[in-house]
Amino acid sequence: MRHQDELKRSVGEAAVKFIEDGMTVGLGTGSTVRFMVDALGERVKSEHLSIVGVPTSERTREQANGLGIPTKGVDEVDHIDLTIDGADEINRAFQGIKGGGAAHLWEKIVAINSDKNMWIVDSSKMVDELGTFPLPLEVIPYGSQQLLKRLDAKGYHPKFRMNGDQYVTTDSNNYVIDLHLGEIKEPHALALELDQMTGIVEHGLFLDLVNTVIVGREDGPQTIQAR
Amino acid sequence: MRHQDELKRSVGEAAVKFIEDGMTVGLGTGSTVRFMVDALGERVKSEHLSIVGVPTSERTREQANGLGIPTKGVDEVDHIDLTIDGADEINRAFQGIKGGGAAHLWEKIVAINSDKNMWIVDSSKMVDELGTFPLPLEVIPYGSQQLLKRLDAKGYHPKFRMNGDQYVTTDSNNYVIDLHLGEIKEPHALALELDQMTGIVEHGLFLDLVNTVIVGREDGPQTIQAR
Repeated sequence: MRHQDELKRSVGEAAVKFIEDGMTVGLGTGSTVRFMVDALGERVKSEHLSIVGVPTSERTREQANGLGIPTKGVDEVDHIDLTIDGADEINRAFQGIKGGGAAHLWEKIVAINSDKNMWIVDSSKMVDELGTFPLPLEVIPYGSQQLLKRLDAKGYHPKFRMNGDQYVTTDSNNYVIDLHLGEIKEPHALALELDQMTGIVEHGLFLDLVNTVIVGREDGPQTIQAR
Repeated sequence: MRHQDELKRSVGEAAVKFIEDGMTVGLGTGSTVRFMVDALGERVKSEHLSIVGVPTSERTREQANGLGIPTKGVDEVDHIDLTIDGADEINRAFQGIKGGGAAHLWEKIVAINSDKNMWIVDSSKMVDELGTFPLPLEVIPYGSQQLLKRLDAKGYHPKFRMNGDQYVTTDSNNYVIDLHLGEIKEPHALALELDQMTGIVEHGLFLDLVNTVIVGREDGPQTIQAR
């Protein structure tokens, strides 16, 4: 196992300690989350926990079900106690960018329907300022070439996310455009601007959302209360 | 032909007089637009106009192609000179509600990419205040039950648009929720609020968009310059 994976595993194991019997738990998407879901599967098996998982992607749902963790859709539960997800960047004010895995629409839908949100990351994701990581947008395919021109005219350096010569599509069958911004000085202002643009279903700025961050560090997982 | 249809036909015929040879024309969706497309088909045939239509729905595309009007997708054209569409309500400030035909997402995408926009309506659509007509939202199916609860808690009287026991789906395979508001005192404030809600792809408020309105009246079509 690579060293990076060891850090991710330790963070995943630290995160599942916050899960209590009877909880409805949102399950994020991504490589760190994958370790967390593995650890949760072990707890469910060994402690006979009664847990319902609400996955944010088809691939997380498949993993959870394979481990014996029962899952429900976000529309089939009353509420979600805690959602544990990854993040691509987190700044000093605990604002984040997500969507590197093209799942940020479903992730945000689960996040806003959760009582508490926890992000689990390795230390490379903690940054001073957001924007080195390209900001993902989920966009409606119809009109998306015109939208790209519009974003380009704003100087946002947009690029369709491709898989070879195929457009990457989300679980909602939309496309992804990544904005190569370099820096995001005012996340709230940018979020508001993108919210108002027709054709953008959702952007990857997750603002004022996370309550707890667990960071994988050489000397062990560090748990931070963000808000 | 019913009297109402005669008014719609006269408006459609008045509208196509604004179309010039060589134009790229956005073609809306709805019963009044259907008469306009019929009239455009006749002009294309009799005057050998070179026109490209950009349809806002699959059904308008089928109608246009059946009449010999060539069509392109919104992403295949450089620009759109003029879009002619219907509206469900237009207030005194020429702000509108669209989406009765569940096509408002594609309609708005075409509208914002058009140099000029024209709405053609019968006089019953001209109102003092918006909101008697239910405001349509195109929404992502995933999480839409939670979104409905959220809109209900705001007092917006949301209802899924159904066709029997089936959800109505849009050309982008999303659902439609109609807000039964009764009155919309501040359209811009409401638009901004809905823009920021995760899971709403697009709302049916078309603000500051229309340039010309043609209203079907007993004494003939009335053309109004809105902005």
